Amino acid sequence: MSKYSIGIDYGSLSGRAVLVEIGTGKELASSVYDYPHAVMDTELPDGTRLGVDWALQDPQDYIDVLEHTIPDVLKQAGVDAADVVGVGTDFTACTVLPVKKDGTPMCFLPEFRHNPHAYVKLWKHHAAQDKANALNEIAEKMGESWLARYGGKISSEWEFPKLWQVLSEAPEVYEAMDYFVEAADWIIWQLTGVQTRNSCTAGYKGIWSKREGYPSKEFFKALDPRMENVIEEKMGCPVTPLGRKAGEVTEAMARLTGLRAGTAVAIGNVDAHVTIPAVKIDAEGKMLGIMGTSTCHVLLGKKEKNVPGMCGVVEDGIMPGFFGYEAGQSCVGDHFAWFVKNCVPASYEEAAAKAGKNIHAYLTELAEKLQPGESGLVALDWWNGNRSVLVDVDLTGLMIGLTLQTKPEEMYRALIEATAYGTRKIIETFKQNGVPIHEFYASGGISQKNPMAMQIYADVINLPVRIAGSSQGPALGSAIFGAVAAGRKNGGYDDVFQAAREMGNLRDVVYAPEPGAAAVYDRLYAEYDLLHDYFGRGANDAMKRLKALKIAVKSKGMLSK
Amino acid sequence: MSKYSIGIDYGSLSGRAVLVEIGTGKELASSVYDYPHAVMDTELPDGTRLGVDWALQDPQDYIDVLEHTIPDVLKQAGVDAADVVGVGTDFTACTVLPVKKDGTPMCFLPEFRHNPHAYVKLWKHHAAQDKANALNEIAEKMGESWLARYGGKISSEWEFPKLWQVLSEAPEVYEAMDYFVEAADWIIWQLTGVQTRNSCTAGYKGIWSKREGYPSKEFFKALDPRMENVIEEKMGCPVTPLGRKAGEVTEAMARLTGLRAGTAVAIGNVDAHVTIPAVKIDAEGKMLGIMGTSTCHVLLGKKEKNVPGMCGVVEDGIMPGFFGYEAGQSCVGDHFAWFVKNCVPASYEEAAAKAGKNIHAYLTELAEKLQPGESGLVALDWWNGNRSVLVDVDLTGLMIGLTLQTKPEEMYRALIEATAYGTRKIIETFKQNGVPIHEFYASGGISQKNPMAMQIYADVINLPVRIAGSSQGPALGSAIFGAVAAGRKNGGYDDVFQAAREMGNLRDVVYAPEPGAAAVYDRLYAEYDLLHDYFGRGANDAMKRLKALKIAVKSKGMLSK
Repeated sequence: MSKYSIGIDYGSLSGRAVLVEIGTGKELASSVYDYPHAVMDTELPDGTRLGVDWALQDPQDYIDVLEHTIPDVLKQAGVDAADVVGVGTDFTACTVLPVKKDGTPMCFLPEFRHNPHAYVKLWKHHAAQDKANALNEIAEKMGESWLARYGGKISSEWEFPKLWQVLSEAPEVYEAMDYFVEAADWIIWQLTGVQTRNSCTAGYKGIWSKREGYPSKEFFKALDPRMENVIEEKMGCPVTPLGRKAGEVTEAMARLTGLRAGTAVAIGNVDAHVTIPAVKIDAEGKMLGIMGTSTCHVLLGKKEKNVPGMCGVVEDGIMPGFFGYEAGQSCVGDHFAWFVKNCVPASYEEAAAKAGKNIHAYLTELAEKLQPGESGLVALDWWNGNRSVLVDVDLTGLMIGLTLQTKPEEMYRALIEATAYGTRKIIETFKQNGVPIHEFYASGGISQKNPMAMQIYADVINLPVRIAGSSQGPALGSAIFGAVAAGRKNGGYDDVFQAAREMGNLRDVVYAPEPGAAAVYDRLYAEYDLLHDYFGRGANDAMKRLKALKIAVKSKGMLSK
Repeated sequence: MSKYSIGIDYGSLSGRAVLVEIGTGKELASSVYDYPHAVMDTELPDGTRLGVDWALQDPQDYIDVLEHTIPDVLKQAGVDAADVVGVGTDFTACTVLPVKKDGTPMCFLPEFRHNPHAYVKLWKHHAAQDKANALNEIAEKMGESWLARYGGKISSEWEFPKLWQVLSEAPEVYEAMDYFVEAADWIIWQLTGVQTRNSCTAGYKGIWSKREGYPSKEFFKALDPRMENVIEEKMGCPVTPLGRKAGEVTEAMARLTGLRAGTAVAIGNVDAHVTIPAVKIDAEGKMLGIMGTSTCHVLLGKKEKNVPGMCGVVEDGIMPGFFGYEAGQSCVGDHFAWFVKNCVPASYEEAAAKAGKNIHAYLTELAEKLQPGESGLVALDWWNGNRSVLVDVDLTGLMIGLTLQTKPEEMYRALIEATAYGTRKIIETFKQNGVPIHEFYASGGISQKNPMAMQIYADVINLPVRIAGSSQGPALGSAIFGAVAAGRKNGGYDDVFQAAREMGNLRDVVYAPEPGAAAVYDRLYAEYDLLHDYFGRGANDAMKRLKALKIAVKSKGMLSK
């Protein structure tokens, strides 16, 4: 008799549940629910205005996802809830909210309903940049050793800059909250009634490490004297490694979802990291790129190494027993979306429509006919800054080699190639710093839809590229962790690696580097590398000067002499 | 009683006659005639195939222009041919043909009708590049002093590379020809029955100078022993300065055109150079840019200076008594045409159509709202290589500062600005080499149609920009020289400067630099300049390497390892 696990993937705009057969990884049903409040980036529902770069969510939406999608997948699959032995979840991160001792979000309380700081700060809430800058400066000055584990910089997206912003702008919220928790952990708390803190978000977003714990009281005091005891006061929950069971579905949640009370629930997880077992990665040397609008790179390693520009290295941060590495490119698919929106001539749109093709498919068909090097173009993939190796948001895009004969499909391909060079740069930086990589795995939209892009990646990085078998990698990964939470005696697994091997999924196709193409791309990458260092490492700060001038002109109008 | 002059402007695809009132410069009538053979770049009319980069014309077309346009303007204006006292012409250059002693083009002779080398080689015939390269190498090796007068390089477009190609590939044509003449001079020969050679094409295209004459026999012998006496054998016609009368309309031409036999005809001229008097330039320091698909810059100076990358300096080459300077940008309007063809999204085309606007007008309207520096973009105007200062066809285009927010109108404006930076680079190079420039004049399509572009030019070069009053500048300039050929006693002028002041034409508008914008453009130009030197002077030869790789890949397929 088959047993099942449900994985729930919380994205930026919706949550998705997938019901998976344990042992095979077969996906029997899936269901998506759009957050009613979506992303609040201009105002609260009551009309309270938000500042620039804000991005909030309403945690009720996360509960609504459970209420809608779980009954739906059970019904679609025709599976008895008694046979669902585990539930796993993954979330965007760092997505955080202030809550009371019992887990009640501050924004549910009448007295804080109109206060923006009482809501969930979504990962892409960027209004704490000044706090991040100050934090980094202080950390560097105090010689904090943990800074190197984060490539030398804490992002404004992460926990402490966001928490510090609350303290600074809404001390009443800071005072009144009992915990500042990751949504990834909050949803588990709601499902099980038990508060936990997962090692993944604690490590990558909360400056925690298994060996060293959190930064010192002295450091937090240097940020703000009121934060001296922030860990005890606002983060007072021990950290649990990934792969463990967090608790069991409560009676109340059972009524809401149709699951059986007592069903095992896994420790919270993060969308990118949770995908590792979904593509059967169980060892070091295999980098996974989750390729969408941006790309997140995750990788297991046996040793802790400091790699410039990486997002972080966290012991047990992805799979137990390994150091999990994370890196990223801030703009991948967004390049192609920008190009299609701003640079594709009407004649191409018409030809695509006539051929009954989507414009990406049409451009890809033309770009596929080009040989590597044939366009004479090289681009720097910095249309949205650089968060890999250089970690500099003030860098901008560049294209070189344009002529009167340059065609749209050549520019389109050059942008795809540029993102592949960006990935190669990350891979080479890891390798140079002692973290081996000898295979590349790709999941996410681009990996599923664009074989040309995948061949280009294989040729550029000169490594075989394997493709995720599921288009719902994170949800599948969550289901795998759900099966592990259930344990072998309940029809699940005791070991996440075995679960990954049996339930993870890869396509049959492997994109192997073509030696001729790889040789041409070696030469093109050398040009990329030269431009990367020239514009990215201070030899010519044209991009920064142009950006500064742009901001000055926009804010003050034309400069006077 | 008014007197009149007719100016005839021979372009690449058509000839245009304008009938002008002497004393006022008022244009009473104009008439255009398209060359029946247009540009022959793939085959002769008999099907004989042409090579890559060939561009030929049939000289009969030039005669047909006279036959059609002159009667037409006389009729339109209702002017008696007796009151037309002068005719002037201008031509593309270097546009050359082999002829017999009596002026008969070789291609009119039955025995040479099927030989491509018997036809007119149009200015843009680029198939003699290997000859130009060899010529330059030999000239440099022999330390030829005249090389500096041409910015250090003779172009493949000019007389001797083209003539050498004839000798090399069709010695029978070389043998049989008595003269290799500029079409500019040939048409005068046809009108007057008198062979002349004008100082403008002789100087700029034929390596002739008033003081030093032609290169030495030793030099020509070094090219090919058969060319030792090339000047006596194929160019045996003395050079006449501009502003002189060449002869008078013959009886036969009078019958063909409706002009009176005996009407004065001016010495031949070139389309760009002839425009100087049409915009009233009568002194040094005033650069004229003839802005179309490319831009030709012409300028009068009191002294001979060597300026890197200029096309040439020729005494009496533009106006008598001055050193005429010529420089150029190989790609100006072509940038915008490329952009509109390859990079403007369908949504913009639709909005333009809805507003009843041409797409250039629509983009300009949007680009006009941007402040200098607001886009954060800088481009290098090298989509068709660089023929100013750097003189390097292997350079290619570049754009920097691109972001996900970059809009088409920003890129469009960045390209316009790039061409303005290119012009500033030329101006600064002239000034640094002792040739003063303190005003800029613009003629040609862009100057007439795009006030935004003209304001950008004024702000970027930080000089007032004056605009040609006539959209037919070359034809008006030719008419001015026609009036001078007639002389004062026949109702014309004895002095071309006086003729220019009375008949030349400027618009009332002057684009004055706006100090705030000029200050921003100083900073943007500094970025252009830095990129110009970095990519153009050898610090990073990425453009050349990419082009070489492109050629290798295209010709040999993918490189093998």
